[in-house]
Amino acid sequence: MDTPNVDSTQFLQQQLQAVVALLDKQELENSLVRKSASSHHDLEEALVNKQHQVRLQERLSDLHPADIAFILESLPLDQRQTVWDAIKSDNDGQILLEVSDAVRQTLISGMEEEELATFASHLDTDEIADLAADIPKRAMLKILRSLNNQERTHLNTILSYGDDQVGAFMDFGMITVRDDLNLWAITNYIRKLGKLPSHTDKLFVVDQGNIVKGVLPLQRLLTHSPAQHVAEAMVTDFVQFHLDEYTADAARAFERYDLISAPVVDKQGQLQGRLCVDSIMDYIREKTDEEMLIQAGVEEDEDLFSSVWKSAKNRWGWLLINVATAFASTRIIDVFQDTILQMVALASLMPIVAAMGGNTGNQTSMLIIRSLALGQINAVNVRRLIKKELSLALLNGLFIGLIIGLLSWVLYYNLALSIVIGFAMLINLLVAVLVGLSIPLGRYKLGKDPAVGASIMLTAITDSMGFFIVLLLARMFLIGR
Amino acid sequence: MDTPNVDSTQFLQQQLQAVVALLDKQELENSLVRKSASSHHDLEEALVNKQHQVRLQERLSDLHPADIAFILESLPLDQRQTVWDAIKSDNDGQILLEVSDAVRQTLISGMEEEELATFASHLDTDEIADLAADIPKRAMLKILRSLNNQERTHLNTILSYGDDQVGAFMDFGMITVRDDLNLWAITNYIRKLGKLPSHTDKLFVVDQGNIVKGVLPLQRLLTHSPAQHVAEAMVTDFVQFHLDEYTADAARAFERYDLISAPVVDKQGQLQGRLCVDSIMDYIREKTDEEMLIQAGVEEDEDLFSSVWKSAKNRWGWLLINVATAFASTRIIDVFQDTILQMVALASLMPIVAAMGGNTGNQTSMLIIRSLALGQINAVNVRRLIKKELSLALLNGLFIGLIIGLLSWVLYYNLALSIVIGFAMLINLLVAVLVGLSIPLGRYKLGKDPAVGASIMLTAITDSMGFFIVLLLARMFLIGR
Repeated sequence: MDTPNVDSTQFLQQQLQAVVALLDKQELENSLVRKSASSHHDLEEALVNKQHQVRLQERLSDLHPADIAFILESLPLDQRQTVWDAIKSDNDGQILLEVSDAVRQTLISGMEEEELATFASHLDTDEIADLAADIPKRAMLKILRSLNNQERTHLNTILSYGDDQVGAFMDFGMITVRDDLNLWAITNYIRKLGKLPSHTDKLFVVDQGNIVKGVLPLQRLLTHSPAQHVAEAMVTDFVQFHLDEYTADAARAFERYDLISAPVVDKQGQLQGRLCVDSIMDYIREKTDEEMLIQAGVEEDEDLFSSVWKSAKNRWGWLLINVATAFASTRIIDVFQDTILQMVALASLMPIVAAMGGNTGNQTSMLIIRSLALGQINAVNVRRLIKKELSLALLNGLFIGLIIGLLSWVLYYNLALSIVIGFAMLINLLVAVLVGLSIPLGRYKLGKDPAVGASIMLTAITDSMGFFIVLLLARMFLIGR
Repeated sequence: MDTPNVDSTQFLQQQLQAVVALLDKQELENSLVRKSASSHHDLEEALVNKQHQVRLQERLSDLHPADIAFILESLPLDQRQTVWDAIKSDNDGQILLEVSDAVRQTLISGMEEEELATFASHLDTDEIADLAADIPKRAMLKILRSLNNQERTHLNTILSYGDDQVGAFMDFGMITVRDDLNLWAITNYIRKLGKLPSHTDKLFVVDQGNIVKGVLPLQRLLTHSPAQHVAEAMVTDFVQFHLDEYTADAARAFERYDLISAPVVDKQGQLQGRLCVDSIMDYIREKTDEEMLIQAGVEEDEDLFSSVWKSAKNRWGWLLINVATAFASTRIIDVFQDTILQMVALASLMPIVAAMGGNTGNQTSMLIIRSLALGQINAVNVRRLIKKELSLALLNGLFIGLIIGLLSWVLYYNLALSIVIGFAMLINLLVAVLVGLSIPLGRYKLGKDPAVGASIMLTAITDSMGFFIVLLLARMFLIGR
């Protein structure tokens, strides 16, 4: 593995450029061959391709799987396939692990069961579990058959937990010791092993019942006297996680306690596996990326170069919901057509009131959603919180209402109109904050994800209320006087 | 430190409940004392408070600083102050490090220079650097004076780098060795040290010029023969970072290569410090939280219980910008007042066209922003990407346009109107995607953060264009025939 000693990103870009250059060269030469009058240019073309395959292999052979994954993700589908075919080899299960889900599907779709099975044979069970979702059933059966009993149970354990549970993220590369041994014995044991699993910063001390009694930080093997027994050297207040615990909570714990690895236990407290900081980091990244995309109405992570059709399907769901809500909220305007006809200025003022409602509401709900995620909101302080947000809404309403009122007066020199608009703004901001509070808090109380669909429901309500309040007040106080 | 063996989150909630209970009890008793006829109830009140202080201290003494930080963040200002005053002690610099920036300010504001100075004296220089921004100048000077030369240079190095640069996140808890020693010597050296800095998974091998020649994974001290020399046992292809490298890039590298710690070097390649996975995790979390809040128009992380005024200031900036853009985009409607008066249905249809434009544009720009962050977009593939997004926009436009056209026909039985609306939708979606592409890509080309203000600029444009296109087409094809 040849790792970057230039800035890691520069390094990746250089590699990518080089690969693309090779690919372009290949296409060029192929086209030349095709043009060439020679009778057997299929042969020549095959030859050219073979040469380029070799060059690609040389180029990528000493790259870290994660770097190759990056290059594959950055390549358009056709070129990606060429590279993938060129470099595929037994250890490429690692590459499949590193690429994004979307890209992984494009790579696997083109592969034989046989290939997949051989790939899997070079992976740990927790790694196979990561791929399981994307591997076709029949290939998966082949793989299962190739595993021994223990591996199969491990695999099934992991697969039996959802992505939001710790069990789905654990691996089995833990080293367990008994507390009646002395450190000297442990050190010998490790020397015999010859190599420790990655992220081994501590050994797990278990009793006959496989209950975790403590952890033995690796460095204590170096700092403590070899004569000492594990029982004296081990740390007894340590963090452990339960199989069905929320991954999000575990992630927060990893951040709070700066963990590198921690034991995972079942309800009986028996050691089942190990949770490591690298899986947690991947989880955090995936989760936050996902949230950002969902905020923007992209249902799932998208392969930059996936077919237009695929992307379209990925984005229509949200767009259709928006069409629906948008229509619904504008129905109100129809009801007040006569009001608008009598004062057309309303047509240009009411969208503002609606929009501002959406904005303030979103500010509130986003803060609530985040505080809920941090576990900072609870029966104790929720009332104070609501009180604060409402008084804030009142303040905002008066402030923004005043501004809108002034602006519309400047535009239309109609005092009554300005007052109505300003007042409508005040009311709509209050509504917006109420909704912005109640949607996430309500969904949370019902045990649902507070974030899902929050902003879309919110804007639907604030829009229609915005239109409604403006037009109603207008009809009551402005029209036909 | 007493760490949770129930689910870590349950544990925190329990602790919080307990503290709140204590606080309520205290208030109650105080009020009783006040009511009591006794002449010297100030004394009694002081007594009661003292007792409660002790109880609070007992309650929290064996909690991890991060857990105490959580409790403080979850408490309203007054109660937070009470707890903080009760538990303040020398090692509470750690707590200050763990609380969110917003909460840290509330805690520090109430503290004496003296206190802060003593706190700092128990912290590492990189930890002091984290607090520096919130510590008042005069206190900071006191602290600087208390440091020795090396510490002061360390502190200045860190402070001389921005939050987006690796230098700001490094610590100095690295252990360096020479490659001519054998592992036995190293092991002895470590045993003499007695304790290794947290997150020490490898030692850094440097030459006389302090250039990093390799890294020695801690576990090799256990697995390799003590007779072996560092030169043979060390890993020579390793990841190192530069002081001025982007933290975001470093974070991606930590994820790709599953790093726990890595050396940080200056332009000459001389070892300057160490970057650890815990700082990287905090960075990722802060960054992503920040982005989420900015998306929602909350300028900076907010203390749940900060004063209404403070929160208001934090949110008005965005709201005012929105008022401005909203007004700007609706000016267009005024220009077409006559058109609306002749066909008021437009008043309820044009907001839909505008809104849908915003949605599709946001989908595009969000995916672009994310791919830019991943470094997946480059001169090589950007053209293909643009082509794909545009054809997608065309597809979306035809699809959504058709739907809108049908719906409006159902509502108004006016074929011409339906065609105009559907066509306007098609055009606006194309505009939206063009803008959604060009804003982030443009800002990126100019070396600015592609995400900042993207969605607000976008909606401003798509709104006005939405109104404009609908009304223009309407005037051209519908009115006065």
